[in-house]
Amino acid sequence: MTPVVRALAFDVFGTVVDWRSSVIAELEDFGTRHGVQRDWAAFADDWRAGYSPAMDRVRRGELPWTRIDDLHRGRLVELLSAAGITVDDAGIDELNRAWHRLNPWPDAVAGLTRLKTRFVITTLSNGNVSLLTDMAKHAGLPWDCVLSAELFRHYKPDREVYLGCADLLGVAPEEVMMVAAHPSDLRAARDAGLRTGFVFRPAEHGPNRTLRRPAEGEFDVLADDFCDLADQLTA
Amino acid sequence: MTPVVRALAFDVFGTVVDWRSSVIAELEDFGTRHGVQRDWAAFADDWRAGYSPAMDRVRRGELPWTRIDDLHRGRLVELLSAAGITVDDAGIDELNRAWHRLNPWPDAVAGLTRLKTRFVITTLSNGNVSLLTDMAKHAGLPWDCVLSAELFRHYKPDREVYLGCADLLGVAPEEVMMVAAHPSDLRAARDAGLRTGFVFRPAEHGPNRTLRRPAEGEFDVLADDFCDLADQLTA
Repeated sequence: MTPVVRALAFDVFGTVVDWRSSVIAELEDFGTRHGVQRDWAAFADDWRAGYSPAMDRVRRGELPWTRIDDLHRGRLVELLSAAGITVDDAGIDELNRAWHRLNPWPDAVAGLTRLKTRFVITTLSNGNVSLLTDMAKHAGLPWDCVLSAELFRHYKPDREVYLGCADLLGVAPEEVMMVAAHPSDLRAARDAGLRTGFVFRPAEHGPNRTLRRPAEGEFDVLADDFCDLADQLTA
Repeated sequence: MTPVVRALAFDVFGTVVDWRSSVIAELEDFGTRHGVQRDWAAFADDWRAGYSPAMDRVRRGELPWTRIDDLHRGRLVELLSAAGITVDDAGIDELNRAWHRLNPWPDAVAGLTRLKTRFVITTLSNGNVSLLTDMAKHAGLPWDCVLSAELFRHYKPDREVYLGCADLLGVAPEEVMMVAAHPSDLRAARDAGLRTGFVFRPAEHGPNRTLRRPAEGEFDVLADDFCDLADQLTA
């Protein structure tokens, strides 16, 4: 790989952590504690399905800047109501913080630890700073720093996020490689001048949704996991 | 100590790292490489002496937002010129990055590692994000996240910095303890509603300047170093 990459900026939900199995486990635990049974996998998928539309409302200016914690909570309140589940505010807050406690993919910590020896490694997520910070503590993610859309008051794929990341790191956009499991994120990063590293996470949406690998050559690097990424970047 | 403190926000220059001996060593190395001899201790003190006045110009609105790297560089150019030292731009940039390579006080990494098990630990420095990130890699500082005045476009002791830190961490101001070796920083933090932890660093300004301990009771905690701070906060 080119030696001019100085920093790797990681998408987090789906790329570093397995949000789906983590949230399902949290919901199952919640159900046990509150004595309710539902299809928690479907609940988790519905919860996540509210994520992009809510951010898009912020991106279009229909909502003022709102952090992900609050977008997640708004969706959760709707879903609990629709499911006929009554919980007090503290219980809702506690469940909403499931997103602060997501578990990493099995290769994530080992791969990041290797990559950190050679590159600055940062988050570049739509998750808010406190969510990402709590998650790093929970999951043992060895970030050099925690950058978030929240710092720029723009959500990915807005260009401001990618350019703002390079600016805060004190490097040129082409010295940053965006690493993500989502082609749309990488295409926007590329349009802003960043390098791109795709990591294939076929299990992100569970066993019933098949994800395809992108075409060879669309991104600068195509990796099967973070250890493969470290191999390819000779970290 | 009160159990409601959830995060510790650390001043960095002088509190976590020994800027003076680090910068003197960098200047000595610079002198050797460029074949010039000067009083590098005095040069380091003069360099640092430009720091507060330059930030104050930003704080008063006489300068637009300017990151510390650029304030440091402006002062360095003046001092090199006054000392009759000619260096090319790359050499100036390299020397200016001495502030990215400061060494920690001997107790800093051990103390932070203990405190991290119990609290969220973050920088809250006037240094810019890339400076703090590089320094953490250089010195092995185990921050949970890297917060900087740069994110708020206000320098300490502006209130926006302390309140902005609590906001990004998703906690109330009184749930954050500012930790610093400088009473002025702590007084401003306290005025913004934060808790205060003073760490005594009598060697910050070298052997010829005597620093006094603040009065008992002025701050919530008065510690001799980060290990003592960890003891007092039962981390």
